[in-house]
Amino acid sequence: MSKIKVGVAGYGTIGQRLADGVARQEDMELVGVADMAPTLAVRALYEKGMPYDLYLVDGADKAAFDKLGIPTKGSMQDLIGKVDIMLDSAPGGIGAKNKELYQKAGVKAIFQGGEKNDVADVFFHGYANYEKGVGKDYLKLTSCNTTGLIRTVDCLDRSYGVEKVAITIIRRVADPGDYHRGLTNALQVDKAPSHQAVDLMTIMPHVDATGILVHTPVTHGHIITVLAKGKKKITKEMALEAFEKHPRIRVVRLADGFQGNASLFKYARDLGNTRGDMYEIGLWEESIVESGDDIMYAINIPQESVTIPETIDGIRAAMKMQEKGEEGTAKTNEYLGIGKFKAMGL
Amino acid sequence: MSKIKVGVAGYGTIGQRLADGVARQEDMELVGVADMAPTLAVRALYEKGMPYDLYLVDGADKAAFDKLGIPTKGSMQDLIGKVDIMLDSAPGGIGAKNKELYQKAGVKAIFQGGEKNDVADVFFHGYANYEKGVGKDYLKLTSCNTTGLIRTVDCLDRSYGVEKVAITIIRRVADPGDYHRGLTNALQVDKAPSHQAVDLMTIMPHVDATGILVHTPVTHGHIITVLAKGKKKITKEMALEAFEKHPRIRVVRLADGFQGNASLFKYARDLGNTRGDMYEIGLWEESIVESGDDIMYAINIPQESVTIPETIDGIRAAMKMQEKGEEGTAKTNEYLGIGKFKAMGL
Amino acid sequence: MSKIKVGVAGYGTIGQRLADGVARQEDMELVGVADMAPTLAVRALYEKGMPYDLYLVDGADKAAFDKLGIPTKGSMQDLIGKVDIMLDSAPGGIGAKNKELYQKAGVKAIFQGGEKNDVADVFFHGYANYEKGVGKDYLKLTSCNTTGLIRTVDCLDRSYGVEKVAITIIRRVADPGDYHRGLTNALQVDKAPSHQAVDLMTIMPHVDATGILVHTPVTHGHIITVLAKGKKKITKEMALEAFEKHPRIRVVRLADGFQGNASLFKYARDLGNTRGDMYEIGLWEESIVESGDDIMYAINIPQESVTIPETIDGIRAAMKMQEKGEEGTAKTNEYLGIGKFKAMGL
Amino acid sequence: MSKIKVGVAGYGTIGQRLADGVARQEDMELVGVADMAPTLAVRALYEKGMPYDLYLVDGADKAAFDKLGIPTKGSMQDLIGKVDIMLDSAPGGIGAKNKELYQKAGVKAIFQGGEKNDVADVFFHGYANYEKGVGKDYLKLTSCNTTGLIRTVDCLDRSYGVEKVAITIIRRVADPGDYHRGLTNALQVDKAPSHQAVDLMTIMPHVDATGILVHTPVTHGHIITVLAKGKKKITKEMALEAFEKHPRIRVVRLADGFQGNASLFKYARDLGNTRGDMYEIGLWEESIVESGDDIMYAINIPQESVTIPETIDGIRAAMKMQEKGEEGTAKTNEYLGIGKFKAMGL
Repeated sequence: MSKIKVGVAGYGTIGQRLADGVARQEDMELVGVADMAPTLAVRALYEKGMPYDLYLVDGADKAAFDKLGIPTKGSMQDLIGKVDIMLDSAPGGIGAKNKELYQKAGVKAIFQGGEKNDVADVFFHGYANYEKGVGKDYLKLTSCNTTGLIRTVDCLDRSYGVEKVAITIIRRVADPGDYHRGLTNALQVDKAPSHQAVDLMTIMPHVDATGILVHTPVTHGHIITVLAKGKKKITKEMALEAFEKHPRIRVVRLADGFQGNASLFKYARDLGNTRGDMYEIGLWEESIVESGDDIMYAINIPQESVTIPETIDGIRAAMKMQEKGEEGTAKTNEYLGIGKFKAMGL
Repeated sequence: MSKIKVGVAGYGTIGQRLADGVARQEDMELVGVADMAPTLAVRALYEKGMPYDLYLVDGADKAAFDKLGIPTKGSMQDLIGKVDIMLDSAPGGIGAKNKELYQKAGVKAIFQGGEKNDVADVFFHGYANYEKGVGKDYLKLTSCNTTGLIRTVDCLDRSYGVEKVAITIIRRVADPGDYHRGLTNALQVDKAPSHQAVDLMTIMPHVDATGILVHTPVTHGHIITVLAKGKKKITKEMALEAFEKHPRIRVVRLADGFQGNASLFKYARDLGNTRGDMYEIGLWEESIVESGDDIMYAINIPQESVTIPETIDGIRAAMKMQEKGEEGTAKTNEYLGIGKFKAMGL
Repeated sequence: MSKIKVGVAGYGTIGQRLADGVARQEDMELVGVADMAPTLAVRALYEKGMPYDLYLVDGADKAAFDKLGIPTKGSMQDLIGKVDIMLDSAPGGIGAKNKELYQKAGVKAIFQGGEKNDVADVFFHGYANYEKGVGKDYLKLTSCNTTGLIRTVDCLDRSYGVEKVAITIIRRVADPGDYHRGLTNALQVDKAPSHQAVDLMTIMPHVDATGILVHTPVTHGHIITVLAKGKKKITKEMALEAFEKHPRIRVVRLADGFQGNASLFKYARDLGNTRGDMYEIGLWEESIVESGDDIMYAINIPQESVTIPETIDGIRAAMKMQEKGEEGTAKTNEYLGIGKFKAMGL
Repeated sequence: MSKIKVGVAGYGTIGQRLADGVARQEDMELVGVADMAPTLAVRALYEKGMPYDLYLVDGADKAAFDKLGIPTKGSMQDLIGKVDIMLDSAPGGIGAKNKELYQKAGVKAIFQGGEKNDVADVFFHGYANYEKGVGKDYLKLTSCNTTGLIRTVDCLDRSYGVEKVAITIIRRVADPGDYHRGLTNALQVDKAPSHQAVDLMTIMPHVDATGILVHTPVTHGHIITVLAKGKKKITKEMALEAFEKHPRIRVVRLADGFQGNASLFKYARDLGNTRGDMYEIGLWEESIVESGDDIMYAINIPQESVTIPETIDGIRAAMKMQEKGEEGTAKTNEYLGIGKFKAMGL
């Protein structure tokens, strides 16, 4: 079977990781990436020896690339003409404009969380509603927090049934290397309910959800506390059993040295993962606590990389590579090396 | 009526504020404060012209004070001999040792949250269980987070009845000026349930509580999200109505510019409050959100000053100055200037 | 003698402190302050009981003030009509526009460091070039870092002669309470030379200066390291002797507990200073070190308050209240309570 | 020629990187690493499939490793018995104790900057005094800041002669993932002169040096400003020409997007470097500024990885693999891939 051809629009924090993730899928071919300017990400691509071809979006200053000796392969339209599906990780709002190009060329596309829901036919999560994306032309991924959150809520829901969740998102305010946004010695409260709670209800309409988001001055991953009410009482042991089985949830222990989001980042660096990324979310065993009928726990969301697996799931669904979620996500996991630690008692 | 005579043991972050708070009570007399070494706090006391007399705890190096010209009035035992009640804000664990001195001298004492519960006869909160402290010899105050949290839960409970709460504490990890502790670009998760949830159940045994605490690298106040389940459904309007009436809760709005904990600190500085302190907790109107039968909201805990009013309430209870909580807290509020903003539409 | 009448345009971080500082001058009268909107600073003014009259700048929405019950006294033009001199602390660039109003009304004005130099007749520093400001109509103050830096360089220069300085500014990136700017876990380098070095040469043209500025994610004061080359060798003892005599330099010691910028902020809070402000810069005794002919030292710049004394010096110069710098600065110091600690051995 | 056999004592932040760096040297063999407990670093080694053998230091709890299924190969003494040279990256002070084991076994060793100078025969820097280390038994590496700093001072010195430097170290206070140390919203001043200035004079005795160090709450690399006085005037062009030629100095530009230490970390992550590490120091072109006879510039020190190349140089010197510094450092650079970017105009 021939490989599915994939292009990436926007070679930023997410775009770089989408490209790397697709390149690891043995049944996909990364045709190229498109960007606007010789950013640091593009310079790094060049310094690495151009593992991916680079295309230019409309308005890009080709001379700036030429001056640095960075080779380009044509326009973004050229790229679109060579692929089956585009992954759009352009800045928020640009994706909606790019969609016109995709439609004109008759290629499918998957948008990231920064776009409005109506850009797509389906608001998609690889585990929670894979089947809804099968064969569709335009998908939109859940945002980083929602993606990780739903992994756990869907996990409990499939095992035991979930009626209701209330979340507190302790949000990282910037990524490592960001200079265009930041907080200094301040927590910042958002208007409630947080969009993540609302989005969860869109993806899982049978669950009632609310939540509050507070920004914090850190860069290495959000932490979300989740209070979930099961259809029947979910004990700590039941929750742990379900979480332990999920390939994209890494249950970690304070007692082992995983003290917070920065421990997980350090661990991923020491694993040799590219960029120190981790596809799994962390979930602290010692944070799980029962309260009456409810169960509460804390998870870590590695914001830069968490949506990569579910986006690749989206390719599988949209392109009908696998028609069942279980098979599609398993293929993604296999090629990304997700879930290997599960057998190691770590 | 003669004034109640009060001493303070430990002139640190809390001790300084206790002394200042007591000095504002027209029916109390601050006899003096006791400390160990010419710390920056003691030097500041000296530079201010010694508004309070200073006594030395056992083991203090008097020569160090003399060398700087800082006058001292005697030993901590001397201080204890002159007072009706001691406020003990010594470092955690020292209070239990100090208690022997208080017992020997037959004076009452109020301990701070760092001591173990068994140091005292009553674990005390000015609003939630004032009457339990009336006439008692040894009280222990709830910790800063628990003090502020209980203000809101007790407020809802008295108005509508509360059955259950689940909290997420986004904890400031250090106070301004702390160099002995700190986090840098990291969130840190604690073992659940947090002691604040457990403490709440001790004070309010009819409420079921759990919670998770996450440390964050900021200094200007904790933020707690609270999910509360009422005996009957509590709407946003009902919650707001109750909170607006509570003298020690300041309802603020994102729309007015109160974006987070640092806005409240800045506002308190601009008010001219000593040290930029605030006795009230902040509660964001736009954070209040209903979810099924539950109500969720976010509060700000000014960790350095929040326990001062309830500690002074404790004096009133222990010394039987007022036998009813409503009267005791009202007197404290009057002398501390708490609640004035309520009438201003701010 | 009648008091000099002063107005303040822009009631933000600097404007609030200018107003408070002027109000403490017994030979000046603060007529009022002007602002645009019911900001948190204005609300705090109202909650304090309107110690100053409030005027509205053009374009202000009076209805917004009325709705909150905040009384206003008229337009900024009304304010200008009642004063001898305006202190302009409007956002950068607005001062140049306001100047037209001042010129039309024939009142003098002092601008803050955010305006361009050509807005004023003299680029002013109370200690380094007071006499140049005497009788002038329009002064511009040096910025916060430059103001503090020049205190020390001028101090050494008057005592021993200085030929050359090289500075490294470790800049706080935001003020407490700022949510519109911030850095998270990042240092940021500016193009060299820093404007502060250039500005120093404008004020002290006989000194050669250069420097590099690096932004850091903190809020409680800049730290500057200064390498100075004297006309003759300046020893540590000589430097210390000169610094100890300067009223606006507070020599502090690591050994006493002043570990960094946050210690000084904490100390100022504990002193009971309004907002925890300090007018003096800190200078660490243990940072002073000789290197060949050079002397190196580190200072702390309390960015919110450091320019207040020199701005008030500017009023004295412009209004010819004192024609000599020594007399003008002494009067400012007396009313602001600067230098009292000098006699205390602290 | 047979490969030089190398062991690593202490598998922490530095030890992991030493092991990885040695493993890339085609003329060396990494025999194994020794540690005490199944730390996160050891767990990551296990999760990676044990690319290196693991030995246990005295007092290690073997059962804890066995329980996790982590294979061990014997004691640290066993490891020492199999190698020609040990790289000691044990916690500060332990190296001196380990030395007894090395001496007993007759193997050479290189200690990291945390040990006292007298642990070694030579205080070593690959570029500044390679020849002094040739054939020696015990070397001690300069610390991370000193290593990077000396690269630039030695670079200028060899090109033009340097007489004097004054440095300001803007120090990162913790590494990513550290929870045992940290600062929150504070700068901290150290007693001057900083040890790095003193160490520079030990390595380069003909240069006079002083400096001040200030700790800042960030994790991604120190920034040092250096003021250097040449034997003759060094212009910006001259400095830049020399820096551009140095393989371990990466000249970067603010204009290209390298805004600070976090940009360099992000870039190294995007390059795909293991752990996002960089062996080169960064040096900002726009920070270079002349002042009279002096030249000033700012550099970035990636604290986790900067000493790895010079430590490997040390192996080459101690083992007489190359007797000349130029050859030894060139070999290290070749195997670590250092300097490739030089030809790319980046």
